Amino acid sequence: MQVFTNAAFATMTAESTGYGLIEDGSLVVDGDRIIWIGQAADLPADYVDADFTDLGGRLVTPGLVDCHTHLVYGGDRAREFEMRLEGAGYEEIARAGGGIVSSVKNTREASEEELFDSAIRRADTLLNEGVTTLEIKSGYGLDIETELKMLRVARRIAEERPVTVVTSWLAAHALPPEYKDNRAGYLREVVLEGMSRAHAEGLIDAVDGFCEGIAFSVEEMRLVFDHAKSLGLPVKLHAEQLSDLHGAVLAAEYDALSADHLEWLGQDGVDAMAKSGTVAVLLPGAFYTLRETVYPPVQALRDAGVAIALATDANPGTSPLTSILLTMNMGATIFRLTPVECLTAVTRNAAKALGFADRGTLAVGQRADLAIYDIQHPAELTYRIGFNPLHARVLGGELV
Amino acid sequence: MQVFTNAAFATMTAESTGYGLIEDGSLVVDGDRIIWIGQAADLPADYVDADFTDLGGRLVTPGLVDCHTHLVYGGDRAREFEMRLEGAGYEEIARAGGGIVSSVKNTREASEEELFDSAIRRADTLLNEGVTTLEIKSGYGLDIETELKMLRVARRIAEERPVTVVTSWLAAHALPPEYKDNRAGYLREVVLEGMSRAHAEGLIDAVDGFCEGIAFSVEEMRLVFDHAKSLGLPVKLHAEQLSDLHGAVLAAEYDALSADHLEWLGQDGVDAMAKSGTVAVLLPGAFYTLRETVYPPVQALRDAGVAIALATDANPGTSPLTSILLTMNMGATIFRLTPVECLTAVTRNAAKALGFADRGTLAVGQRADLAIYDIQHPAELTYRIGFNPLHARVLGGELV
Ligand SMILES: [Zn+2]
Ligand SMILES: [Zn+2]
Repeated sequence: MQVFTNAAFATMTAESTGYGLIEDGSLVVDGDRIIWIGQAADLPADYVDADFTDLGGRLVTPGLVDCHTHLVYGGDRAREFEMRLEGAGYEEIARAGGGIVSSVKNTREASEEELFDSAIRRADTLLNEGVTTLEIKSGYGLDIETELKMLRVARRIAEERPVTVVTSWLAAHALPPEYKDNRAGYLREVVLEGMSRAHAEGLIDAVDGFCEGIAFSVEEMRLVFDHAKSLGLPVKLHAEQLSDLHGAVLAAEYDALSADHLEWLGQDGVDAMAKSGTVAVLLPGAFYTLRETVYPPVQALRDAGVAIALATDANPGTSPLTSILLTMNMGATIFRLTPVECLTAVTRNAAKALGFADRGTLAVGQRADLAIYDIQHPAELTYRIGFNPLHARVLGGELV
Repeated sequence: MQVFTNAAFATMTAESTGYGLIEDGSLVVDGDRIIWIGQAADLPADYVDADFTDLGGRLVTPGLVDCHTHLVYGGDRAREFEMRLEGAGYEEIARAGGGIVSSVKNTREASEEELFDSAIRRADTLLNEGVTTLEIKSGYGLDIETELKMLRVARRIAEERPVTVVTSWLAAHALPPEYKDNRAGYLREVVLEGMSRAHAEGLIDAVDGFCEGIAFSVEEMRLVFDHAKSLGLPVKLHAEQLSDLHGAVLAAEYDALSADHLEWLGQDGVDAMAKSGTVAVLLPGAFYTLRETVYPPVQALRDAGVAIALATDANPGTSPLTSILLTMNMGATIFRLTPVECLTAVTRNAAKALGFADRGTLAVGQRADLAIYDIQHPAELTYRIGFNPLHARVLGGELV
């Protein structure tokens, strides 16, 4: 047993208002679980012989959860970013091999080792800010072997670093060039068949898709979701980013864990998500990078009681962002979420978006995943821009 | 003598186009100066007995320069940030002690040690991204003793860390409550008299002011600049941030090093700056935080040949930003500067904004201030968001 003491704890529980702050608190861990939390003065005598770790008056939050990333990919798109700013149009960039096609090409060509070496640097950046649970999607392979390679790399991150990694099958991300006249063939031969294989190999925890005019339709996603359900896999969806195809309504129909992006979400989608308990995952990094002007309907989501999460959407094209703390600031500055909402969005609600009930809050019975920061007040996490106050993390009870 | 070799060098010289990239380059340092730079294959035989440092194929840029910060202050404004997002109006925040008044109060109350302890964490964040020269302004004291205290803290940062610190006298930042009915008295008794004292104590390198409806008028700034000139101090100005008072024209008239912010800058200001060689320092962190909608006239500045710099404006109210790399990304994403312009903006042009001719480029005779990054192409510095690829810095020839 271990006692973490002399700290303020932002418990983030649903029952508490605001941060659920316990000042001058203590937290007791047995194995990987929290078995007691409260005022230090109330610490039961049973724990006096435990190992005490004095946290020096620091602030402790639940370990942060980044619930939407495309962290594993080959190459980068810096040169494409530069060309666009130098005035190149989409066609010129495409001719120069840019766009998602370039990430697919680079990911296919990269060895598993190369993919790991580049992804681990991005993962470390997130871990160094307090992330303890990380979602990673496939989706730059668009062929079965490369998608599986990406997922093995994602799993390996959790073997080599103290972090929980959750994976999503995102073969329905884009149509690869070799299938450009055969959408049905791609869905059947790669998306569905690959899903079965990835599932059999234990490589996927959920199934995702990109429902958009430039990607897959609602009816196509329905095929993907039906197959996921047949395998017992939960689903989620990139929906309503650039237009309103009512993807969120579809997602809710399949009891999706989350619908993500949602800039163009209408009231039908809000209502459907509220009913199914689907989390709204907002991705301000993509909004910022694409200089979007249509905002996700934050107030409608609040009014309907839809849980709002925030994530980095770390990806090489539209959100080359690997800071969960900056994501919180963007959630506030761009989307006008309050700091309480922003911290909830990367703890309790992000855990919910991944189907976890055992983390994202500090309460008895929860996993002892903690982030310990050198700050006085939890609002500082959202307020500061480009500043990392992490002191240490605790993963499953172990200080790391 | 030392030779840094096996690296790509982004020389950023005015003569070169783009990054002035030297692939497979070497750079020779004697004392704190660069004495040779070029292709490794061309390295003169004279240097074969020097100490060689193999940089492993990394990318080297001139050490970065953050030419506009308010890094030294007491307290923070996280709670005010939170209140605003929770719907509080300016009046309510002011009643709760918020606004610049709260930073002034906290800065006055803080001991020199406390100010140093909080400022050094922010400075370290910048240094860890590759900053080797840092400007720091006074301006949260608004009384002579506190302004001097801030400046001593700024100087101490350069004593305790490997970095050059340049200071600016910014007593003309706001009118303190005790002078609210005596603007002329404040200017005479604090701004001018304090400037003379700070100058006599060797605490200031330049004089700055905030020229705005809510701060000081052009005519008031003229008094401040006249006194600066009488002491032989160069000037700079916060101008045209929220309205067009033609502060940049005034600044140019006094051969100002820089005019900063400039969202509302008109063609008269652009032309005057071009003529006087005054650098345009753009501050996207403040633009982002305040959600401004009027953009600085980037194309007009380019057309007129005005040098454009970027800086963090690190301050507790309108830009709690301590990442120079994120500032570069914001320069591109928000202001549409190209990555070449962004890197120029935090090297050569930022050095110029501080009056330095001996840094900000990699060329013979320049100070050997370098930033060494684990990246392949300089555009990656601007492209990535919330990722720090710094490997090491070199300050005046010493690897730090
Ligand atoms: Zn995504
Ligand atoms: Zn400023």
